[in-house]
Amino acid sequence: MINSIALVGATHGNELSGIQLVKNWRQSGLPERFRPLNVNLLLANQAAMQANVRFVEQDLNRQFTPANLTSPADNLESHLAIGLNSQLGPKGNAHTDLVIDVHNTTSSMGATLIILQLDEFHIQLARFVKQAMPEANILVEDEKPYEEHGYLCTVGKRGVMIEVGAQPQGVLREDVYQLTLTMAEAILDFCVCRNQQSVPALPACEAFRLGENIHFPLDDNGERTAMIHHHLQDADFVPLMPGQPVFRSFDGSDINWWGDTPTYPHFINEAAYHKLHVAFATADLITL
Amino acid sequence: MINSIALVGATHGNELSGIQLVKNWRQSGLPERFRPLNVNLLLANQAAMQANVRFVEQDLNRQFTPANLTSPADNLESHLAIGLNSQLGPKGNAHTDLVIDVHNTTSSMGATLIILQLDEFHIQLARFVKQAMPEANILVEDEKPYEEHGYLCTVGKRGVMIEVGAQPQGVLREDVYQLTLTMAEAILDFCVCRNQQSVPALPACEAFRLGENIHFPLDDNGERTAMIHHHLQDADFVPLMPGQPVFRSFDGSDINWWGDTPTYPHFINEAAYHKLHVAFATADLITL
Repeated sequence: MINSIALVGATHGNELSGIQLVKNWRQSGLPERFRPLNVNLLLANQAAMQANVRFVEQDLNRQFTPANLTSPADNLESHLAIGLNSQLGPKGNAHTDLVIDVHNTTSSMGATLIILQLDEFHIQLARFVKQAMPEANILVEDEKPYEEHGYLCTVGKRGVMIEVGAQPQGVLREDVYQLTLTMAEAILDFCVCRNQQSVPALPACEAFRLGENIHFPLDDNGERTAMIHHHLQDADFVPLMPGQPVFRSFDGSDINWWGDTPTYPHFINEAAYHKLHVAFATADLITL
Repeated sequence: MINSIALVGATHGNELSGIQLVKNWRQSGLPERFRPLNVNLLLANQAAMQANVRFVEQDLNRQFTPANLTSPADNLESHLAIGLNSQLGPKGNAHTDLVIDVHNTTSSMGATLIILQLDEFHIQLARFVKQAMPEANILVEDEKPYEEHGYLCTVGKRGVMIEVGAQPQGVLREDVYQLTLTMAEAILDFCVCRNQQSVPALPACEAFRLGENIHFPLDDNGERTAMIHHHLQDADFVPLMPGQPVFRSFDGSDINWWGDTPTYPHFINEAAYHKLHVAFATADLITL
């Protein structure tokens, strides 16, 4: 049974879809069919939200590793993480059955459900969401055990992220908001079905398994020498074939994809990865 | 004669097209045909650029009013304004003939040239840019005298802004960069022509004259009750007709355009106007 759910916005203070969804559901109440569920509506980092920034001192969505929760640093987001771990967790022995953490990206990732484990629950959830919302993407980040992730959603017994784009930081777009709402409702519909033991037989679905981060080329001074090529921009989850252009250098030359197999780029030109010089992430196509 | 030109990036530290253009031209030198011009390549707010924020304490692009330059406040951007006024101005008696200040917006404004005066120089410039770049928009902000604007570009004898979008803050898009480059080159081509007294006879062109700012509807607690309607989103400079939808309220109802004449919305859903709750600006269509 999914007895206790937390739906979280403002884990990043300038990603407005989840923030608005929480505000709206607090105002209007959840849609009638979800009222049997016990859903806690949270705004995780209100200081960042007020300042309209991703975070004040440290990225809150990286603070939930076992090490950080045991020995927190002295900054706002570490303190918030300790509080949220008490409120929703504690991590590893949580009384919250499912944490749904709602994010935005400046990449054209559409509505993406990020799952961290490939057990029966998450495979069923992915298939259910994909059936309710065929335009959704499923992204699997199981490159390490669930508990080792630093993501906020991992304080729950189970945790998933909704990631929707393209939306600039500090902007609310109606199209992105509607996708966010539809995916949140699909996840809650799944919980209702599962609690009623009425999840239908679901066909297998396509998903993407995270590969690696690809960085912008830099010169000896650490300055970028190229930008995302227009061929790649906004082509999230479109297969990138060997030899296709990836970067356009400022000297006018192109840099082509050096991998020898197709890959599925995503988080292409994500604003929050500016400082890290991450250009995009790769993924493999899998079936769940 | 246009003897002295300043091309400025990083007036806002998270608008990357102008920053990259300045860096690239510093690295490679200006295109050969512009070398007779005396072009000073500047990054106005390097602290904001390093921090990847619009500004550190106050919006630098509002600090150049006569009052602020006479009695500056004690913050980083006021100090920067004083320095830039000495370097490029002084305002009202400037030794810089033309300041070209390069901006980005999260609105779908395409490549927009903002001019502040309708004298012969600026009308010729507008027509020249429009002929070189038919997809460009010309936006006239002459609602007050040139000298009274707080914009950085007004420290010059003449000053214009390049405003290109849609581009999220902290992101460099190739399409937006190329539009920025094309418009900067068109302005410099005009300066070369004008110095050679070889500006051709130019046909009149379409332009937009700034009207007023339209704000998001707010409740009694100052919280937004609606978002930009999908009909209006990304429809910058597309005529908005009386009765067409402008906002979608979070209760599901629509708010329609209450004006009784068509208007030309722009700066639709601009991230930087978040705190001010500005939803878009209106404009009238004029001929220059």
